[in-house]
Amino acid sequence: MSHLTALETLDVRFPTSEQLDGSDAMNPDPDYSAAYAILRTDAPDGLTGHGFAFTIGRGNDVQRVAIEALTHLVVDRNLDEILGDLGGFARDLTADSQLRWLGPEKGVMHMAIGAVVNAAWDLAAKRAGKPVWQLVSEMSPEQIVALVDFRYLTDALTPDDALEILHRAAPGRAERTAELLATGYPAYTTSPGWLGYSDAKLTRLARQAVADGFRTIKIKVGRDVEEDVRRVTIARAAIGPDIGLAVDANQRWDVTEAAQWITRLAPARLSWVEEPTSPDDILGHAAIRKAVAGVRISTGEHGQNRILFKQLLQADAVDVLQIDAARVGGVNENLAILLLAAKFGVPVIPHAGGVGLCELVQHLAMIDYVAISGVMDGRAIEYVDHLHEHFRDPVRISGGRYRAPRTPGFSAEMLPASLAEYSYPFGTAWHGHVDSQPAAQVSAKEHENS
Amino acid sequence: MSHLTALETLDVRFPTSEQLDGSDAMNPDPDYSAAYAILRTDAPDGLTGHGFAFTIGRGNDVQRVAIEALTHLVVDRNLDEILGDLGGFARDLTADSQLRWLGPEKGVMHMAIGAVVNAAWDLAAKRAGKPVWQLVSEMSPEQIVALVDFRYLTDALTPDDALEILHRAAPGRAERTAELLATGYPAYTTSPGWLGYSDAKLTRLARQAVADGFRTIKIKVGRDVEEDVRRVTIARAAIGPDIGLAVDANQRWDVTEAAQWITRLAPARLSWVEEPTSPDDILGHAAIRKAVAGVRISTGEHGQNRILFKQLLQADAVDVLQIDAARVGGVNENLAILLLAAKFGVPVIPHAGGVGLCELVQHLAMIDYVAISGVMDGRAIEYVDHLHEHFRDPVRISGGRYRAPRTPGFSAEMLPASLAEYSYPFGTAWHGHVDSQPAAQVSAKEHENS
Repeated sequence: MSHLTALETLDVRFPTSEQLDGSDAMNPDPDYSAAYAILRTDAPDGLTGHGFAFTIGRGNDVQRVAIEALTHLVVDRNLDEILGDLGGFARDLTADSQLRWLGPEKGVMHMAIGAVVNAAWDLAAKRAGKPVWQLVSEMSPEQIVALVDFRYLTDALTPDDALEILHRAAPGRAERTAELLATGYPAYTTSPGWLGYSDAKLTRLARQAVADGFRTIKIKVGRDVEEDVRRVTIARAAIGPDIGLAVDANQRWDVTEAAQWITRLAPARLSWVEEPTSPDDILGHAAIRKAVAGVRISTGEHGQNRILFKQLLQADAVDVLQIDAARVGGVNENLAILLLAAKFGVPVIPHAGGVGLCELVQHLAMIDYVAISGVMDGRAIEYVDHLHEHFRDPVRISGGRYRAPRTPGFSAEMLPASLAEYSYPFGTAWHGHVDSQPAAQVSAKEHENS
Repeated sequence: MSHLTALETLDVRFPTSEQLDGSDAMNPDPDYSAAYAILRTDAPDGLTGHGFAFTIGRGNDVQRVAIEALTHLVVDRNLDEILGDLGGFARDLTADSQLRWLGPEKGVMHMAIGAVVNAAWDLAAKRAGKPVWQLVSEMSPEQIVALVDFRYLTDALTPDDALEILHRAAPGRAERTAELLATGYPAYTTSPGWLGYSDAKLTRLARQAVADGFRTIKIKVGRDVEEDVRRVTIARAAIGPDIGLAVDANQRWDVTEAAQWITRLAPARLSWVEEPTSPDDILGHAAIRKAVAGVRISTGEHGQNRILFKQLLQADAVDVLQIDAARVGGVNENLAILLLAAKFGVPVIPHAGGVGLCELVQHLAMIDYVAISGVMDGRAIEYVDHLHEHFRDPVRISGGRYRAPRTPGFSAEMLPASLAEYSYPFGTAWHGHVDSQPAAQVSAKEHENS
């Protein structure tokens, strides 16, 4: 009988703010970071489970301590019991009455739970010898339903609703799996559109993205409306009429302002407008969507939990849901969100980028395609070509599509050398850098990230 | 020219779960705790600012580290500039682009901001020689508006709306201040109604509360509907027809279940039903309220920020708003919430209890009465007789009313001896206790707290 023996945590940070300096004046100073978790066991296979919360620098230490605070719910527990009931495990982590006060189910403590739940999935998939997307896609509808916490969801999605969705998708699973393995899953790219880029660079990168096979590109907006109008026009001209053009406002607007601004950008025929306002503002998104009828509105990368996503759908607030693999309570809560989206018929276009988010979220999109919505048309996973070299099983992109992972696990494991080099503040990557960000500069900076 | 020289943090915990053992089987095991912050300066007056985030035990260390993570935004800054522009200071703390990723504006990181902002208010009020409620109540409408961050609020409340509310209240300030100083502010008590109490004890404590002058009592519900029906009937019989009877479900129900349950309890004529479901579920509260038309619905003690409160009001989701002094971003964000409530004409009945929450929130209710809504009828501040002895300026209750604080500051400062004795895990109060909660018992416990 094997047990979980340790929940190790690491503060891993990449000094990405230095590389971005000058190239993008409006974008802030993210140091892409992972509060990293490793589950160890005493099983003879020696396998470990890896997961992380993604942050953008300062506060990664807080996030690491939050993961550590879950130790009493993890260590010394029976390995087979946990891996045999990952739904129960996820519920145990959210049900700790004292820790729950720090949320409930949101922010630092909830992202910590997501990291540990995802690490358990990484371990379960490695032991099963399958990538996570395949492991879940081969479960019965009943097994998948048992993974989901329906608490606070039943006015919109009951276990019976979920079963019906999953049973409806079951007959086509084999065919869709074959297609996925053969052709992959569409990606879209954010690389051309950072705010600081010159018009020439925007044009060049947009054309390059199309040449690379991407069918949608995304650009940042929200600094100046006239400049945005010019830039979306340039981008549209660069990619031609048949490629999708999305824009991302990174929560910059109040509700009324958003509607006015979006109306100005609409002639460029936008695929969607992302994060027009606060991620918490369900009614605000609904009001914006109504005011700009015909322009698709999206949010979700900062969506705190399934209860928020439920309401976004109930309020007809979005045309597109954007899940994030490391913001909510792990695979289990994202399954709830994918089932909600399927129930309401709203497409999911996952958020990725940062460090490791592409690696994780591809599995979720593929589960959705094979076992839940059964739809890939009109969907795409965000892709940013960044920091993949630090992962043992990095994403593989070709022809603008994510290839299905084949390696057992959740593609979450970073290389030991990278973990060591980028450990904060003592890894070699940080030598001479730690004092390079004087406090006085910090408070004036704006909050904008993909 | 003086500066802030230190942001000290302490992990202070009271082993309250031991005292509750046996007296309340359904209530969980809260160890009322404070992640405590002290602002120090090099000013010759030697005054310090005190604030805290309230937690219920495990995770208080995470909360303490989160406060510490704000140090670079606080230390070495000019004292007069900060105290002269507390609105700007509060905005600086929420605007740190990297830390913002951990919320935004919710959970652990946001409560940390609240602790530091409240500590700055404690310091500002001590330097002004006034209690916080009086300091704010004597500001001009324009000064109060400058304290508020209207971002994401302007579709419901603009600075002009706020000014109008404040100017409307201005002429009556002196009269209401005099009344407050003479008669205090109504309190209600939760003491009689813990789930584990026998019928006889419930009756005895309910009658005692009325004899002590309280005009409303509150009891816990949500374990068993038949038992709840019996208990609200007993409570109503004990207090007679003229005393308010509120119930608190502590987020126990899904939406449909809540409506059914509340309908069963309604014949006892309830003052309000508190936290029927997830604090995040704006649309859920609206649906419950509609389904039980005539029974007043409340929430807010776990409300994460002003954007949530805005939507609760926009959606007609509640009859009563319950603010908490240590959950959102401090005095400033609570001013935004009080202004929103005034705009929508919804009464505010503050949450308190725990440790120090009564001490803080009384100031906010009194500001509301003097300078914002101008209304005290039908309002009351929650009161629990617990841990007040650890504060330098504890609340004073007489005749079922909070007496207005007279001591300069925010009543937030704990006694040095208490800070030492209850420091976790090395304070003397914790000798022999720290290992008394085996991990195995923890995950099974339910999450219910006032």
